[in-house]
Amino acid sequence: MNYPLVFRLLGRLLMMEGALMAPSLLVALLHRGGDAPAFLFTIVLTLVCGALPGFLLKPRREDLTARDGMAVAGLSWLLLSFFGALPFVFSGAIPHLADALFESVSGFTTTGSTILRDIEGLPKGVLFWRSFTHWIGGMGVLVFTLAVLPRLSGRTAHLARAESPGPTFSKLLPKMGDTAKMLYGLYFALSLAECACLLLAGMNVYDALIHTFGTAGTGGFSNYNLSVAAFHSPLIEWIIAVFMLLFGINFAIYFHALRREAGPILHSEEMWAYLGLVAFAAVGITAAILPQYPDFFTALRYGFFQTTSIISTTGFSTADFSLWPLIARALLLLLMCTGACAGSTAGGFKMSRVLLLVKSAYRDLEHTLLPRKVSVVRMEGKSVSESTLAQLGVYMFIYLCVFLVGGILMTFDAGDLTTAFTASLTCLSNVGPGLGRVGPAENFAFFSPVSKLILSLLMLAGRLEIYPVLILFSPTVWRKT
Amino acid sequence: MNYPLVFRLLGRLLMMEGALMAPSLLVALLHRGGDAPAFLFTIVLTLVCGALPGFLLKPRREDLTARDGMAVAGLSWLLLSFFGALPFVFSGAIPHLADALFESVSGFTTTGSTILRDIEGLPKGVLFWRSFTHWIGGMGVLVFTLAVLPRLSGRTAHLARAESPGPTFSKLLPKMGDTAKMLYGLYFALSLAECACLLLAGMNVYDALIHTFGTAGTGGFSNYNLSVAAFHSPLIEWIIAVFMLLFGINFAIYFHALRREAGPILHSEEMWAYLGLVAFAAVGITAAILPQYPDFFTALRYGFFQTTSIISTTGFSTADFSLWPLIARALLLLLMCTGACAGSTAGGFKMSRVLLLVKSAYRDLEHTLLPRKVSVVRMEGKSVSESTLAQLGVYMFIYLCVFLVGGILMTFDAGDLTTAFTASLTCLSNVGPGLGRVGPAENFAFFSPVSKLILSLLMLAGRLEIYPVLILFSPTVWRKT
Repeated sequence: MNYPLVFRLLGRLLMMEGALMAPSLLVALLHRGGDAPAFLFTIVLTLVCGALPGFLLKPRREDLTARDGMAVAGLSWLLLSFFGALPFVFSGAIPHLADALFESVSGFTTTGSTILRDIEGLPKGVLFWRSFTHWIGGMGVLVFTLAVLPRLSGRTAHLARAESPGPTFSKLLPKMGDTAKMLYGLYFALSLAECACLLLAGMNVYDALIHTFGTAGTGGFSNYNLSVAAFHSPLIEWIIAVFMLLFGINFAIYFHALRREAGPILHSEEMWAYLGLVAFAAVGITAAILPQYPDFFTALRYGFFQTTSIISTTGFSTADFSLWPLIARALLLLLMCTGACAGSTAGGFKMSRVLLLVKSAYRDLEHTLLPRKVSVVRMEGKSVSESTLAQLGVYMFIYLCVFLVGGILMTFDAGDLTTAFTASLTCLSNVGPGLGRVGPAENFAFFSPVSKLILSLLMLAGRLEIYPVLILFSPTVWRKT
Repeated sequence: MNYPLVFRLLGRLLMMEGALMAPSLLVALLHRGGDAPAFLFTIVLTLVCGALPGFLLKPRREDLTARDGMAVAGLSWLLLSFFGALPFVFSGAIPHLADALFESVSGFTTTGSTILRDIEGLPKGVLFWRSFTHWIGGMGVLVFTLAVLPRLSGRTAHLARAESPGPTFSKLLPKMGDTAKMLYGLYFALSLAECACLLLAGMNVYDALIHTFGTAGTGGFSNYNLSVAAFHSPLIEWIIAVFMLLFGINFAIYFHALRREAGPILHSEEMWAYLGLVAFAAVGITAAILPQYPDFFTALRYGFFQTTSIISTTGFSTADFSLWPLIARALLLLLMCTGACAGSTAGGFKMSRVLLLVKSAYRDLEHTLLPRKVSVVRMEGKSVSESTLAQLGVYMFIYLCVFLVGGILMTFDAGDLTTAFTASLTCLSNVGPGLGRVGPAENFAFFSPVSKLILSLLMLAGRLEIYPVLILFSPTVWRKT
């Protein structure tokens, strides 16, 4: 590892985080919740800790290897989460460090799982920061997966390609900086649009911002114990549902829309598969829950909201779906497994991977029937190599192993298998709520500190597509270069 | 499909089944349980139905394509199960056809799941036949995967190779017939050894045969409601546990042992991985259940027995493990996912596949760290192609999809997610018992007839490694050639 360069990068990221805490300080001062000193202290601490390596270190070489790039991604999320947890601790809102860290990791990874039993009792500045971490995390992931990852050389590039087989920004804009700027712009514009819609629907500014952050980052933190159900407004539910759907789509699609290029949008197999799955699940869940609600449109609203919330890995809720019929819960579990589109802020396994596996399965079955026919798996017009398919299979295997090991470890605290394994799945997929004791009306508070740290690692692993977190455990990464 | 040839093959298989029912008729006559007429009638019916196509059809071409070979495998298991269910129906032991079919499929696929609430009340001939189907099924699978599959041309050959990457019989003995004979011999000898041990341990002949059939086929049907616990004999439990372990090992190992070739045995990575996992799980489960039992050796006996029973996909039980601590149950679930060695009578995903995926994962992670290092995945000395790895990933994906779809469909009948998904997993992996309402002390009787048929399909799919069952749904297979 090129330590001076990596430390300088991390230091500058920390300084950025300190600056990004300023709005929360402002909110804290405005609402006089007593949390302003905590923010002020954290900001100073973060800026100082960041400025020391950020300005003082002079790396001899300025090149970042693929390995170092991945390590930086893993370390930066860890570091941001650690400093992001400090306002929770210093303000007394979440006194225990393991709890605060869990909440902060859940924020930055845009998971939305919480250890808080009573959200509404917390100071407004703290709640603002908690949701703002979603928005930062969402932006970070967009830039990481669409602008940084495709530039890293080596096998990791395959990974990134397997992840977003559609038109990626790197192919459209030559410079990484331009790509990042374009992404910031799109992300900001979509967030603004949602915020405006929510204001028009009658939300106050504070609530509108909080729920926009939660939607844009596909995180799911709300400032109400009842989540979005607290508003008792079908209009607000529809607005948030539609924006959750939109933030689950590959941002390259919006880029093409801006350029008025219909072709790449119409031929985006991943987007159509995603929308198709949403339609299928929403109809299925609506049919299943129909007997529990007064009329079809109410059931549809609940069904559609929960479908988009889970598939986009946001995790907002308008109903306690752990009380829904088993088939509806099983469908939601399926959506937790797939996740939304690559190149969006959503987490999970990603639709493009599922689609590629479905195509490979079809190809292999066809080959069993017609052994003489030679066929290549194609995705959005391009053929996919056997080597990429092999890596995809391995990624699925690692994903499955991390999920299973996480679930098995959770059995020490969880009272039942549903709780243990859905806790692992919802954290790894960055969704938020699970089933059983971690259902939408429950929280993760009852887990032991060790389990909370393991779940935090699962969230980080899921958010960064596992490899950047896994390689941190290898001594090779830490060797000086 | 070469209909005349396929029908003739299936007809001859049916005649063989009719002949294989003779011992059960004999048992029925000896014990005078009133089930003899049912067997006599079924034998006559089966022989006639088999003889018609078996002797009358004269195929113009005698060549069997890979596709037809797989279709024959799928159809023969279906047909054997259907006719095998008839004695249950005709004797009145299991009056409903869906129930009888489930029990018969569970027998031939060596699963061991049952819809019977009271096993001990059934006539002895019927119980003998029920367990004998395990023994037939186990032998059929050995011959199918070790002698027939490797000979089929086309992509299916890759499949077979991926499945048994170790030294296969086809490479050791040039003729398929010789391979099959050698397998019959080994299977018979091992069964005889177990039966002798059980007799020496104090079992009567009838019980010893029943439990030998259940162990050899890795099926798990017992003639007692309490399964192996009914004997209250630690010695018997140890004998059966060790033989379950042995029947989960690739039979090629025994072939080498007979030839006194130590090399291939010592270098069988799959066998060592299998034994290692058994040791790990047995120790883990023993530690977890220690507080529930009077002393260490009792806990070890229960832990080791259940470990070998689940990993070998047999499904005998000496304790109601659904009452064990959550971590013990989670470890058993893990064993249900892996299964035992390829080339054994065991079902499940197979250790060789898991091992190959672990190696690929290690390779890909290493490649992330050292992008310039080119490395090939090697298994038991041979390098594995990227294409084979891609197919392996696809197989895992299909396996997962079948499991998930099965689990989702089971939610209509099962009262909870644990029951629904472990019912699907235990049937697909050919284990037998699951957790929750399908735990070792429970049964599958409460499922609706439709669910029972779906679970039967899952058992068949798992037993034949999915493809031979899936292709039966394609019109291409049914086209006349």
